[in-house]
Amino acid sequence: MKNLLSMEHLTNRELISIILRAEEFERGEQHNLCRSYNVANLFFEPSTRTSTSFEMAERKVGCTVIPFDASFSSALKGESMYDTVKTLEMIGIDAVVIRAKEEAYYNELLEGINVSVINAGDGAGQHPSQSLLDLYTIHKEFGQFDGLNVTIVGDISHSRVAKSNAIALRNLGVNVRFLCPQEWAGDFEAHHSWDGLLEDSDVVMLLRVQHERHENNKNFSKESYHEQYGLTVEREARMKKGSIIMHPAPVNRDVEIASELVECERSRIFDQVRNGVFIRMAILESILKGREINDEVHSKYSIAR
Amino acid sequence: MKNLLSMEHLTNRELISIILRAEEFERGEQHNLCRSYNVANLFFEPSTRTSTSFEMAERKVGCTVIPFDASFSSALKGESMYDTVKTLEMIGIDAVVIRAKEEAYYNELLEGINVSVINAGDGAGQHPSQSLLDLYTIHKEFGQFDGLNVTIVGDISHSRVAKSNAIALRNLGVNVRFLCPQEWAGDFEAHHSWDGLLEDSDVVMLLRVQHERHENNKNFSKESYHEQYGLTVEREARMKKGSIIMHPAPVNRDVEIASELVECERSRIFDQVRNGVFIRMAILESILKGREINDEVHSKYSIAR
Amino acid sequence: MKNLLSMEHLTNRELISIILRAEEFERGEQHNLCRSYNVANLFFEPSTRTSTSFEMAERKVGCTVIPFDASFSSALKGESMYDTVKTLEMIGIDAVVIRAKEEAYYNELLEGINVSVINAGDGAGQHPSQSLLDLYTIHKEFGQFDGLNVTIVGDISHSRVAKSNAIALRNLGVNVRFLCPQEWAGDFEAHHSWDGLLEDSDVVMLLRVQHERHENNKNFSKESYHEQYGLTVEREARMKKGSIIMHPAPVNRDVEIASELVECERSRIFDQVRNGVFIRMAILESILKGREINDEVHSKYSIAR
Repeated sequence: MKNLLSMEHLTNRELISIILRAEEFERGEQHNLCRSYNVANLFFEPSTRTSTSFEMAERKVGCTVIPFDASFSSALKGESMYDTVKTLEMIGIDAVVIRAKEEAYYNELLEGINVSVINAGDGAGQHPSQSLLDLYTIHKEFGQFDGLNVTIVGDISHSRVAKSNAIALRNLGVNVRFLCPQEWAGDFEAHHSWDGLLEDSDVVMLLRVQHERHENNKNFSKESYHEQYGLTVEREARMKKGSIIMHPAPVNRDVEIASELVECERSRIFDQVRNGVFIRMAILESILKGREINDEVHSKYSIAR
Repeated sequence: MKNLLSMEHLTNRELISIILRAEEFERGEQHNLCRSYNVANLFFEPSTRTSTSFEMAERKVGCTVIPFDASFSSALKGESMYDTVKTLEMIGIDAVVIRAKEEAYYNELLEGINVSVINAGDGAGQHPSQSLLDLYTIHKEFGQFDGLNVTIVGDISHSRVAKSNAIALRNLGVNVRFLCPQEWAGDFEAHHSWDGLLEDSDVVMLLRVQHERHENNKNFSKESYHEQYGLTVEREARMKKGSIIMHPAPVNRDVEIASELVECERSRIFDQVRNGVFIRMAILESILKGREINDEVHSKYSIAR
Repeated sequence: MKNLLSMEHLTNRELISIILRAEEFERGEQHNLCRSYNVANLFFEPSTRTSTSFEMAERKVGCTVIPFDASFSSALKGESMYDTVKTLEMIGIDAVVIRAKEEAYYNELLEGINVSVINAGDGAGQHPSQSLLDLYTIHKEFGQFDGLNVTIVGDISHSRVAKSNAIALRNLGVNVRFLCPQEWAGDFEAHHSWDGLLEDSDVVMLLRVQHERHENNKNFSKESYHEQYGLTVEREARMKKGSIIMHPAPVNRDVEIASELVECERSRIFDQVRNGVFIRMAILESILKGREINDEVHSKYSIAR
């Protein structure tokens, strides 16, 4: 694996192997990289958990992290993503983790760039490391995926998490259902009420209401969203035995979910954050190991690069 | 000590033990932590000396520092302090150093958070690591506290340094006096002229005039403040033999203190900065050592956490 | 060498010794510093390549880098450069790398500061590490400097790169010519057309058009600049055999240079970035080695500092 750009590029086999490696890291295994790699994190949008999670994972697989302040970089002078990443390559960076506003920004990095690219969110596109940690969280809970019912609730059309997860979960045999207001469904077929969804869901996966997107919409109120689509205390009580609650966070308390449920027994919301570090270690190791093997082949056969 | 939130929570015994440990670090002793801990610095307000001082101290006690850019974090998306710190806990952070605008922001972190919290300034509240370095500076100079005269000059009512220091110094037997314009005294009893204060002060402790607070006040002028309350060259000449000048910095030169006095023989202003690193090493070691012992107890007796 | 502030302070001998050391680093030699030094990077203006290049070089010579966020520091509270750098000295920083808007900002750091200062750009002044990497790039290509023709193209009067390079190159026996619109020549004698310059140039060194400076100028258009002063595909075809193209970057594609030429065979634009890391390792090692020797002398003869 040279890059991790989208869940669509991962086979079930690759995906499962990342999950199983994360499990080993969680049990305390050490990474198997032969040298320290140089990485940089390019976050062009605010982030706490994704950026700190990558920072931690990078150190745990022995990387040197070169700070990059996206809000104070030459991107301000109009430099293209290609020129920025090529520059980092020449400086000696082996892999970059990028979050950017532009969907599929990485397309301009596919040709001519030797640095590995890990997509940490591209606009309303994909967020594969989040998807993988979600899958890992489900895997830890149920041991397998086939036949599970997963209900994804929220702004489906703008959610990179919803899209990444739906693709991967369906490929793994999961029955994925969407629940959202009509205007947030986009091209997806969605339910518009909880009726019939709560009682058989193994996983209720809530999405963050992006107030930035909806604040000018007079028809939107937090209270009525919570009442119609939120996971209320009353709804949680009706959930299936052994079922779990997930949310990529940050949570809008009392909007997507009642504040008192955020750390309830069923909730895996903070566990997801914990799982994210192990998943990102597995992603980084897999990508950097690939570079190692590549380096060896090149040096053995003296292939010009 | 799990957290360091306010000087009010420290006994004289704890406080003295931190000062003595700082002295050992200054003499070149190494920290006694058994492993590398993960820390993050959450500065929601601008800072140079406090943040770089903690960064340096953290490395000197063997910590891994995970960068956290407060001005580019999910706090922008409205995430609460609790959710931010809980997230960092799940990522594997052992201790956070926080500076925030909100007084006593840490109250929401007392329940449910396992990460250790070091308060690096809470609005007009407390700034305990600054207080401890001030005490260390006085201790280095005079060898003891009992009976010293300390005059604190400036915006007492808005100064977290003034409050933290006054509490601790009085507990240690110091005679603390305040000097400031009437409107800056708040609930404190204060002098409004230098008369009788200069000649017997062992320590003149100047506070920074926070221009952000006073710039819209037409009655305030830098020149007249300097003339009435500033430490002028003429006033310095009248100071007691062996007495010292302190200031938490950044200094407004020629406002709180004449520019040529900032590095005069009596001034300990830059020494305070130097002392801060040793004090923060002592704080970090004490808190992280506490976690170590706790970890051992838990693993020995297999207590579920 | 205690500081690196301006090319004007470097003798040819010092300059060549830095270039030769960079060459050794590029061949894989390790640094010869006896301990880990503490450095901080103070970038008061946006930067990608210079800041990440220094970050990488610092780690490669074994430094500990203490993060400093210029846009969130006490400089915002009006702290002077002297007080900021003195503070970092007291915290234990050995060397600072500074980029600032103010020309010759370092003059206030020459007295009373013990930290070593590396100028990473002072307004329209100098940018010596960029100059040295440019010289290294030319040296790698031609093996020597004497008698080479170098044409520098662009906003000469505002370019710190142009000035730093012209001084150094002329001292090394290079024939330096400027090409720019009349209003960008400043006090320099410049050509205003490519006539006669292309065919005998060993190096065409393009400068970045600083749109920030020219955007309000109605007479300036990117298209006409490219046509008159840009390196077009047609002009590149007329360049001398073995000649090279340089640019300090970030490049405005299709303004200073046709986009398809940025990575053409003649272009050394991304090589310059690569060379910068080795040059900065050599600069850092030279400056920190100087501190080491100084430390030894002081400790041997017990000279108070």
